[in-house]
Amino acid sequence: ESRSSVTAALMDKGNYRHFMAKEIHEQPEVLGHTLSRYIDFGARKAAVPGIEHAGFDKINRLIISACGTAYIAGLVAKYWFEKYARLPVEIDVASEFRYRETPVSDGEFALFISQSGETADTLASLRYCKENGARIGAVVNVPESTIAREADVVFQTIAGPEIGVASTKAFTCQLAVLAVLAVQAGRIRGTLSAEQEASLIGALTEVPGYAVQALKREVDVERLSQSLAKASNALYLGRGTNFPLALEGALKLKELSYIHAEGYAAGELKHGPIALIDENMPVFVIAPHDSIYAKTVSNMQEVAARGGRIVLITDAKGAAESGDTAGNVVVMPDVPEIVAPIIYALPVQMISYHTAVFMGTDVDQPRNLAKSVTVE
Amino acid sequence: ESRSSVTAALMDKGNYRHFMAKEIHEQPEVLGHTLSRYIDFGARKAAVPGIEHAGFDKINRLIISACGTAYIAGLVAKYWFEKYARLPVEIDVASEFRYRETPVSDGEFALFISQSGETADTLASLRYCKENGARIGAVVNVPESTIAREADVVFQTIAGPEIGVASTKAFTCQLAVLAVLAVQAGRIRGTLSAEQEASLIGALTEVPGYAVQALKREVDVERLSQSLAKASNALYLGRGTNFPLALEGALKLKELSYIHAEGYAAGELKHGPIALIDENMPVFVIAPHDSIYAKTVSNMQEVAARGGRIVLITDAKGAAESGDTAGNVVVMPDVPEIVAPIIYALPVQMISYHTAVFMGTDVDQPRNLAKSVTVE
Repeated sequence: ESRSSVTAALMDKGNYRHFMAKEIHEQPEVLGHTLSRYIDFGARKAAVPGIEHAGFDKINRLIISACGTAYIAGLVAKYWFEKYARLPVEIDVASEFRYRETPVSDGEFALFISQSGETADTLASLRYCKENGARIGAVVNVPESTIAREADVVFQTIAGPEIGVASTKAFTCQLAVLAVLAVQAGRIRGTLSAEQEASLIGALTEVPGYAVQALKREVDVERLSQSLAKASNALYLGRGTNFPLALEGALKLKELSYIHAEGYAAGELKHGPIALIDENMPVFVIAPHDSIYAKTVSNMQEVAARGGRIVLITDAKGAAESGDTAGNVVVMPDVPEIVAPIIYALPVQMISYHTAVFMGTDVDQPRNLAKSVTVE
Repeated sequence: ESRSSVTAALMDKGNYRHFMAKEIHEQPEVLGHTLSRYIDFGARKAAVPGIEHAGFDKINRLIISACGTAYIAGLVAKYWFEKYARLPVEIDVASEFRYRETPVSDGEFALFISQSGETADTLASLRYCKENGARIGAVVNVPESTIAREADVVFQTIAGPEIGVASTKAFTCQLAVLAVLAVQAGRIRGTLSAEQEASLIGALTEVPGYAVQALKREVDVERLSQSLAKASNALYLGRGTNFPLALEGALKLKELSYIHAEGYAAGELKHGPIALIDENMPVFVIAPHDSIYAKTVSNMQEVAARGGRIVLITDAKGAAESGDTAGNVVVMPDVPEIVAPIIYALPVQMISYHTAVFMGTDVDQPRNLAKSVTVE
């Protein structure tokens, strides 16, 4: 993270055509680095340094605010904190949070997520919470950043310098930190037993291995992306933690391929966006075979009935039960529920990367975008 | 709302080509009916029957859940409850809320919004909250509906039967009820003084008159829509309560015109969607001249610098200060902040209506959509 390592990275894409490809493939390694900082592997326990600043045993809700992809990481974390720690989470994009006079009280805990640690709206939200008496946590990749300096406690992602404008490894490392935090909050709040914690932490320990397996889907994804590169619009659907991932998939296609992709909670499909569906609108569906898989398949069938072309990202069991509704299926490794959002981020990243490469856009520096948005 | 009045309405579009046009133009009248049920005009006070069921003096947060346009009404309400009653609001689309094991405790208050009162996911969320000990409020248009029957207290919208599939008058009547509720909650919680309440209620009293003025913009909107009917993509931007309105504007264009329109918080523009901007992507900006107007203008300038075609919906002061960045401006009446979301909904509805008419789509029965989504 020092200036000299950034410079070195700038000069070296390794064997990759783009920094983004390099950063996608670094994920098994940097996820391992990040998790090893926050997990006691031997004891199979979460061991987040500084977590006592959060006061998870005393608070009634957690506030999270961020922008762009970091906001999406926070939205995944909302599901985790609510499920594992039974802690309600208030989450909003920072540009809204800072101006809407959100009630924040003394003694609350607020978490801000930013790769660079310099995002202007996120910093302004942090200061708003601080002025209102909240304790501040920061999930950042750059420990010398302003957001890190102004926080009471920093949960650093060990992703290394991220050069590509579209965030990849920083996003999955944010997810890794947030997952461990949610599990430890669950232990502190007494909502997870020692056995449950051991099982969840055991699952997280396997993340680097699962990521290696997920990256092996790249050949399939590349073939698929070639045929998608002609689309000018797309939908991304998911339920539960796959809903934020659908937002992330759409955001990445927008950023890199200039395809107007939109992410939607699958259950909202019938309340409007289904009117858009025709043969020219590819629909990506993120649906591992979990407790709500059948609901998503039902939404998928509605899309298929209207001529929509479906790309299903699922596991072997999900693929077997999807019938013939999906034109394309990306078959992912079978993973425990808590690690799914981290692992399913990889095909989503690879789809946008390869689509952009086929379209010939500037992958590492998309038009109109800056790496850190340090102005409003 | 009885069966016979529905039948009568089905047979009678009055002088309008479509039920949607009729329902848009009924808004001054039905907003008046709805507000008169909840406001004591003489005392300039909110007077919502049954509000004691909410326990606004005792709760620490308000839960709101709904689908589609009703969800968007709830999102506007979040801003109002947080600002006027300093009451944090947890809001989520019902299809997510019901499955994500949201922590809900005994004695909480949860509000469900649905025109028909039969929306399947919203009803399931209601039952989830009830089982967890929450008291239930319903904002519905049909008082005999399942959601109304299962609620502890019903805040009925007096919109009359809504026949067009795309919600118009039911949406603004939902907003009217929610605005009065937020103001009365503010009085109950001691966050609004009697003077503040009188001023806010006074503003709401003028809603029917403002709506009449807003409808006079129809000629401008019709002209504008003719040139937009060729677009296949669009963005809608806003900040604060104009952010949910941007979502609503995009949803309506999707439903009625099959234009892939997407709503975005204006501050998130630089975190991704700005990559999409070019001369083929009209950008609608909803920005009355309020405390964050200048921030939105700055986002608008970024769009203009990238060749985006801007349609600005603002008031006379906003129009005067917008410079020459907007290609089209819809000039709205000057209205107090609390009524802006209700009144600005009207041009948004008229834009989608006239665009659909020019495109020749089936305005009252868009493809693939049902009026009430009574299955998941």
